[in-house]
Amino acid sequence: MRTLYHFWISPACRKVRLALSEKGLEFDLKIEKPWERRPGFLAINPAGEVPVLVEENENILADSQAICEYLEENYKDVSLLPQDKIARAETRRLIGWFDRKFFVEVTDNLVEEKIMKRLTKSGTPNTAAIRAGHHNIHYHLEYITYLVERRSWLAGDDFSLADIAAAAQLSSVDYLGDVPWEQHPAAKIWYARAKSRPSFRAILGDNLPGMPAPSHYADLDF
Amino acid sequence: MRTLYHFWISPACRKVRLALSEKGLEFDLKIEKPWERRPGFLAINPAGEVPVLVEENENILADSQAICEYLEENYKDVSLLPQDKIARAETRRLIGWFDRKFFVEVTDNLVEEKIMKRLTKSGTPNTAAIRAGHHNIHYHLEYITYLVERRSWLAGDDFSLADIAAAAQLSSVDYLGDVPWEQHPAAKIWYARAKSRPSFRAILGDNLPGMPAPSHYADLDF
Repeated sequence: MRTLYHFWISPACRKVRLALSEKGLEFDLKIEKPWERRPGFLAINPAGEVPVLVEENENILADSQAICEYLEENYKDVSLLPQDKIARAETRRLIGWFDRKFFVEVTDNLVEEKIMKRLTKSGTPNTAAIRAGHHNIHYHLEYITYLVERRSWLAGDDFSLADIAAAAQLSSVDYLGDVPWEQHPAAKIWYARAKSRPSFRAILGDNLPGMPAPSHYADLDF
Repeated sequence: MRTLYHFWISPACRKVRLALSEKGLEFDLKIEKPWERRPGFLAINPAGEVPVLVEENENILADSQAICEYLEENYKDVSLLPQDKIARAETRRLIGWFDRKFFVEVTDNLVEEKIMKRLTKSGTPNTAAIRAGHHNIHYHLEYITYLVERRSWLAGDDFSLADIAAAAQLSSVDYLGDVPWEQHPAAKIWYARAKSRPSFRAILGDNLPGMPAPSHYADLDF
């Protein structure tokens, strides 16, 4: 069976889980705690990062975008990138926006400080970083609003990897209850539509012992 | 004419300049100072980041990897990704490594602190960050050594976007004279081979007034 090494709150792992599910590909999940730097895991990914996908034929793939491009090239029944070349570039621009810009400006400031530091016992949360995360998220929700006022989904007419990349980041932050949905109703409607897809079920069922999700997290009519 | 909005020391811009040159595509360079947040520039890229490529037909492309994937899909005379699917995934894994991991652990700590803070007048260099950058670069040069002891180029038999992504980051740091080449001779030989390619000429000719490059920067026999 195909195996995904992941850590539940990691947005990069959530992105790959969503992409696999959207494509109807079955996989086992194995939890990996990258901060433990387990030798067996470093042997399959020297970057020491999740996600890592091990295919049934033992091929090993790492880096969320490398994995998603591989899935796109190999499993074509369901496309998560459009066919038109300019539309593909637009989709990848937005994937980069959420994987990199949203992650650095929002997710890393909130999830890293509030959850990962506690799990890894690596110091006390940096309140300046948390403040920055809370501040920055508005700008990103406004950008999502701008996009969905002009398009059905973030990158165009169809649900794509751009929606997956964005929803993966937001779902991690939403686990903390830190997404100010009420102030951004159009972004909330987009997220509700994404979250209603069957591919989201497993992610909405995630629950860390001792750190329960807020009640709206898994609620489709939040 | 095709136009690339760039800033000379940005590794993401260098990556696209190298990819365009390797593919033999002509382009004009326009310097953009992203920190000035010029309205005309924000209108073409709301992320406010370089590089941005404007094609002759006025199509606008942003995000270095989105641009490189677009170039790969549209200009096939010279391939910068291998044909085999697993080899493509391996190449993209390494692109992610250098674009993201090397950038965060090395380039951002050194180039941001030593050059960008001076240019943007945004505070004094953070000496802890600079120390971290100097420390972390050894690990990355060791990883390059590991790769080139097993392969002709970083991702396999052929020069690829992985070499471009890595050399783009290293060339930015090398402009500061901060790459400890003498301690990593195999990585140095790989970089010398990359740097001798005609695509590197323009980058090695870069010179910022008041911040001259060290003498070995443009020297092919450094």
